[in-house]
Amino acid sequence: VKKIGIAILGGTGYGAGELLRIFVQHPQVEIVSVVSSSSVGKCISSAHPHLNGFYNLDFVAKIDFERLAQFEKCVIFSALPHGVTAEELTKILPQLEELNAIFIDLSADFRLKELAVQKAIYPETKELNPELRNRFVFGLSELEKEKIQSAKFIANPGCLSTASILALAPIVFEIKQDDSEIAIGIDAKTGTSGAGRTPQPNFHHAKRSGNFSAYKILEHRHEAEILQALGDPYGEFIKTAFVPHLLPTTRGIFVSAYLTLPFESSTAQLLDIYSKFYQDCPFVRIVENSPELQNVIGTNFCDISIVARGNQVVVMSALDNLVKGMAGQAIQNMNLICGLEETTGLWSPALGI
Amino acid sequence: VKKIGIAILGGTGYGAGELLRIFVQHPQVEIVSVVSSSSVGKCISSAHPHLNGFYNLDFVAKIDFERLAQFEKCVIFSALPHGVTAEELTKILPQLEELNAIFIDLSADFRLKELAVQKAIYPETKELNPELRNRFVFGLSELEKEKIQSAKFIANPGCLSTASILALAPIVFEIKQDDSEIAIGIDAKTGTSGAGRTPQPNFHHAKRSGNFSAYKILEHRHEAEILQALGDPYGEFIKTAFVPHLLPTTRGIFVSAYLTLPFESSTAQLLDIYSKFYQDCPFVRIVENSPELQNVIGTNFCDISIVARGNQVVVMSALDNLVKGMAGQAIQNMNLICGLEETTGLWSPALGI
Amino acid sequence: VKKIGIAILGGTGYGAGELLRIFVQHPQVEIVSVVSSSSVGKCISSAHPHLNGFYNLDFVAKIDFERLAQFEKCVIFSALPHGVTAEELTKILPQLEELNAIFIDLSADFRLKELAVQKAIYPETKELNPELRNRFVFGLSELEKEKIQSAKFIANPGCLSTASILALAPIVFEIKQDDSEIAIGIDAKTGTSGAGRTPQPNFHHAKRSGNFSAYKILEHRHEAEILQALGDPYGEFIKTAFVPHLLPTTRGIFVSAYLTLPFESSTAQLLDIYSKFYQDCPFVRIVENSPELQNVIGTNFCDISIVARGNQVVVMSALDNLVKGMAGQAIQNMNLICGLEETTGLWSPALGI
Amino acid sequence: VKKIGIAILGGTGYGAGELLRIFVQHPQVEIVSVVSSSSVGKCISSAHPHLNGFYNLDFVAKIDFERLAQFEKCVIFSALPHGVTAEELTKILPQLEELNAIFIDLSADFRLKELAVQKAIYPETKELNPELRNRFVFGLSELEKEKIQSAKFIANPGCLSTASILALAPIVFEIKQDDSEIAIGIDAKTGTSGAGRTPQPNFHHAKRSGNFSAYKILEHRHEAEILQALGDPYGEFIKTAFVPHLLPTTRGIFVSAYLTLPFESSTAQLLDIYSKFYQDCPFVRIVENSPELQNVIGTNFCDISIVARGNQVVVMSALDNLVKGMAGQAIQNMNLICGLEETTGLWSPALGI
Repeated sequence: VKKIGIAILGGTGYGAGELLRIFVQHPQVEIVSVVSSSSVGKCISSAHPHLNGFYNLDFVAKIDFERLAQFEKCVIFSALPHGVTAEELTKILPQLEELNAIFIDLSADFRLKELAVQKAIYPETKELNPELRNRFVFGLSELEKEKIQSAKFIANPGCLSTASILALAPIVFEIKQDDSEIAIGIDAKTGTSGAGRTPQPNFHHAKRSGNFSAYKILEHRHEAEILQALGDPYGEFIKTAFVPHLLPTTRGIFVSAYLTLPFESSTAQLLDIYSKFYQDCPFVRIVENSPELQNVIGTNFCDISIVARGNQVVVMSALDNLVKGMAGQAIQNMNLICGLEETTGLWSPALGI
Repeated sequence: VKKIGIAILGGTGYGAGELLRIFVQHPQVEIVSVVSSSSVGKCISSAHPHLNGFYNLDFVAKIDFERLAQFEKCVIFSALPHGVTAEELTKILPQLEELNAIFIDLSADFRLKELAVQKAIYPETKELNPELRNRFVFGLSELEKEKIQSAKFIANPGCLSTASILALAPIVFEIKQDDSEIAIGIDAKTGTSGAGRTPQPNFHHAKRSGNFSAYKILEHRHEAEILQALGDPYGEFIKTAFVPHLLPTTRGIFVSAYLTLPFESSTAQLLDIYSKFYQDCPFVRIVENSPELQNVIGTNFCDISIVARGNQVVVMSALDNLVKGMAGQAIQNMNLICGLEETTGLWSPALGI
Repeated sequence: VKKIGIAILGGTGYGAGELLRIFVQHPQVEIVSVVSSSSVGKCISSAHPHLNGFYNLDFVAKIDFERLAQFEKCVIFSALPHGVTAEELTKILPQLEELNAIFIDLSADFRLKELAVQKAIYPETKELNPELRNRFVFGLSELEKEKIQSAKFIANPGCLSTASILALAPIVFEIKQDDSEIAIGIDAKTGTSGAGRTPQPNFHHAKRSGNFSAYKILEHRHEAEILQALGDPYGEFIKTAFVPHLLPTTRGIFVSAYLTLPFESSTAQLLDIYSKFYQDCPFVRIVENSPELQNVIGTNFCDISIVARGNQVVVMSALDNLVKGMAGQAIQNMNLICGLEETTGLWSPALGI
Repeated sequence: VKKIGIAILGGTGYGAGELLRIFVQHPQVEIVSVVSSSSVGKCISSAHPHLNGFYNLDFVAKIDFERLAQFEKCVIFSALPHGVTAEELTKILPQLEELNAIFIDLSADFRLKELAVQKAIYPETKELNPELRNRFVFGLSELEKEKIQSAKFIANPGCLSTASILALAPIVFEIKQDDSEIAIGIDAKTGTSGAGRTPQPNFHHAKRSGNFSAYKILEHRHEAEILQALGDPYGEFIKTAFVPHLLPTTRGIFVSAYLTLPFESSTAQLLDIYSKFYQDCPFVRIVENSPELQNVIGTNFCDISIVARGNQVVVMSALDNLVKGMAGQAIQNMNLICGLEETTGLWSPALGI
């Protein structure tokens, strides 16, 4: 079959639901297996009622590798929790290799290159095979396009990380000119869907509706990804202070980063540098006023703006945590690896209001 | 002690939190025991962080009856779940009787007079002692003021019931003139706090934020209370069709009831009848335009409006499910029984916006 | 040109924005002119920032009929306010006729067939040319498919009307068996985007956030459309009592309709009748539990459910007021008229959460 | 009369509504005049429907100074817009002085001590009489208690300023030990009621619901107040980078401030310093986890927390913009000036959920 055969692990979660939602509009894929140990035999829309009418498929216990083998290319997306993915991957690795399949992992199990960092930050990571880890490319599409294009294993970035890294990359790679220390306060706000589908006291509707608060203050695990992607995995030069907050919305991440440059600049200059840095990136829109969540929700866009006053700088970015922050970027990476147009299946605007 | 001694069972739930919140402003009470088997020794604000600074009290395992005995009057509020209250009450009944204490139950265990109805609607009700049941008065303050004033045991009404009963009582008791059947569509919308504090999939923030849906369509248990309070416990003449819906707000109930009278009337006439019916009821405000949730949230008010067109009638009521729909009405009932001004501790307006 | 040439009047409003958003994914159209007298020369995304990157077009003062003439087919959508459309149409009627263009009107100016009814309900309607009025077909796609397919002028239904009509049509056309009177309480809840883009006190964020209230109680103008579509324009047999309410959401309509049948039925029976009635309608999904707004927002679906208890019936429908309730249905009608697959450009699921 | 006579200018706005709401529970005041040129003769609840039943008063054209003269003390609150207050004050100054009245201004007209700064930041300020300006005390109750107690004219702080100043004062006054420069990123998030009652496109419900964005990035006028209150009106040592954002809630401000100390500290140390700094301040609660908006909304509390990691520090504060950020603090200042307990009329908890 000419199309790309798709299997999804962890089929009942928000990540899988979002992959399936986006794939409705992707002309080059066919969904072969949606795996969920807890829902075998139930139809897809039992867990994802918004997909009612779109898929004539039930959850299954295992990937149908025989059927996958009939496709020219096949991609396995894992939307399993942190700490589980690595183990599951080890089990199916032989079949993956036989099929020459692509594996895109939405969890954090393979995001951190340094084994020591991964162990320290994610003690639940069970599989620590360094050779396997080395085959993974950190899938921040805009920054690692070439590596991604030739990868077989993708560690898809975290949602808060994606928003923070895209906001800061031009500063770190284009503007900051030496190895001097730079302090960056990263104030991240996220909708509640980032916590997944399992009910929890802190994500109870009555607790979050109309509320706002910070959490994991200066100890959120995405900070390690951010530093790694900015080229400073141990935070030697870049002194991030990362604080996530909970917005009373379902989707959306908005990051505001505060820093002081060693020289004066202007908003126009910085907007220009940012525009050039992202000129080949269809999903990064540099905007003149503040990004607005409602312009990115449901889309794969990351809208970014930057303002300078003397040597003070504020960078703002906005994206949808389940799309550019998860399933959308995963599909963007699939497109890159499979030689498709980067925007295939992803080129749609937000509802706006 | 001259004040009223208060004990609360089920201390960590929303009901208890709301009693404690209101009691901050009640000049005649002293909180003696807040019982919670799961949180013994923890401070009140561990479960109710908004009360930080207001109570210097920890949760306890049992009511301190000795201390209660030092008060001239004492009131025990039970905010335990349905099916548990009756059992707990049986255990402490001897002490209650010794103290001549008042017992106000926020659960549904004693709301339905007819044992058969209670059993059918709430099969989890364990204690079905008819004598004990007979001592309970259904605490819809506006309709049962005299009975309440001389009661020792109050079955506090449900939240959806309170809004529906107050909306319909003048129709049934003042306007409807015979035993002909009347069909009433009761469209109720409620905030999510009515489901309590325990996380559940259907009350997960991501599931409810920006969402709206019906639930327990034509099978919600409050319908039995509504019929009973309207004088027709078996629904022989009043044919209610009761459908609750979930609003994406934390608090607030809005009921719209649809009915056809056997004669033509006018909005002015009906507003007049409603105003007279509730003229001695400080917490019922008859308003000319639609009630608005934001005018009642956080208060003990029930705002009601009514519109006629020919023989068609629409009645609307709005209240806060945790106040007039639960803890506020319970305290209103306590005030009535204890001979206080009905509004004591409850006379405060909504935030408005 | 093989594609369909599109012009849009009233280009800065929510209706035009929604047409443009959906057209991004429609493979058979080309946008020729987006007319806005107030924004001539500004880019589309000045009014619709979520469309940033999708259109390289500015607002213009007039439709470019010369360019439209190069297309095999062309469609003019009017998203002008009530009372203005008819006048504007009269001005461009000669060009329309020359081009054999299709005209789809999102306003209420041509919705009511009976001139007397239109005048009574919409006194602002300026153009009352009965011959022109007669050329319009009421564009409720599911009910008037054949008439629409051969129409040149479409009066696109109102949003509250669409949800109500789709909920009630099977009752009226399949189940109700005679000319007896039937009382139907129609409780409609709508998001705030239905009021359009112009700021108003009642649609101020601080006023509506977390609020809920009814408006235009028993006097909303969509009731006339509902009656007309149900075959009883003067409400002789069908006694609707229609009350719209404002949800604290941006999008979404949820209708709950209450009625009593002259005989007993069952939920299963009614679900079956509804499923059959809509079996050829890809955008109507009959669901077993309550519809949920989050399954329809952003889509052209109308989800419907129905529950019976004895002879009591409750029907519920949910749709997106800006899609199935406006721009989506308009495009569905365009597809029907132009001989395209009905779902072209419209076959996408909701975000779900 | 023993009570305090109260007059309010600008009676229909949110500020006046909030004063009136709080005064319902204040035992020492009597409302004499609520002035609104646009609503003369209409009842208070025409503009503030949530106060229905609480005041038997109409809006008037002018303060009734004769009646005010019968009170031992009287206080005039001005809730007029910036740029208007100073002019209005000049008109009534003779009567104020005759009555020895207290004047508490909720606008920004007298907040900035330095005439040059006021002129630069608020060019609309019409009255620039330096002598009059000098009589005003900046009413940040916790920091200026003694000055306030002996003041007659209070410039009540801005809402974003109050949250920021209370968060940073202990850092600046207790922890920072020299005149070295310190960079502070102040990320402020506010509900939409801060923009007042007048409908505006950016505060339209459909625009803000579920949305989030920054505004006036590095150019919000409250930054000048913050610097002034921290003792550095020209920002010579304290390099604030202040960015406000709009939350999709009606009320509430949450500030997260990012800074690097010249030395390492610990969360416990800093919490201790903050607790001591605010030990005599009943409305500042130092909390161990993140403040939560839902614990402060509707109250005069400012909840503050602080976290350190090495020399990095994050301070968070939360308050209700209309209470501690406006009307509540104004009443707190009135209490201080009039020799009442600081908490009179203000000692009530949030709804919590």
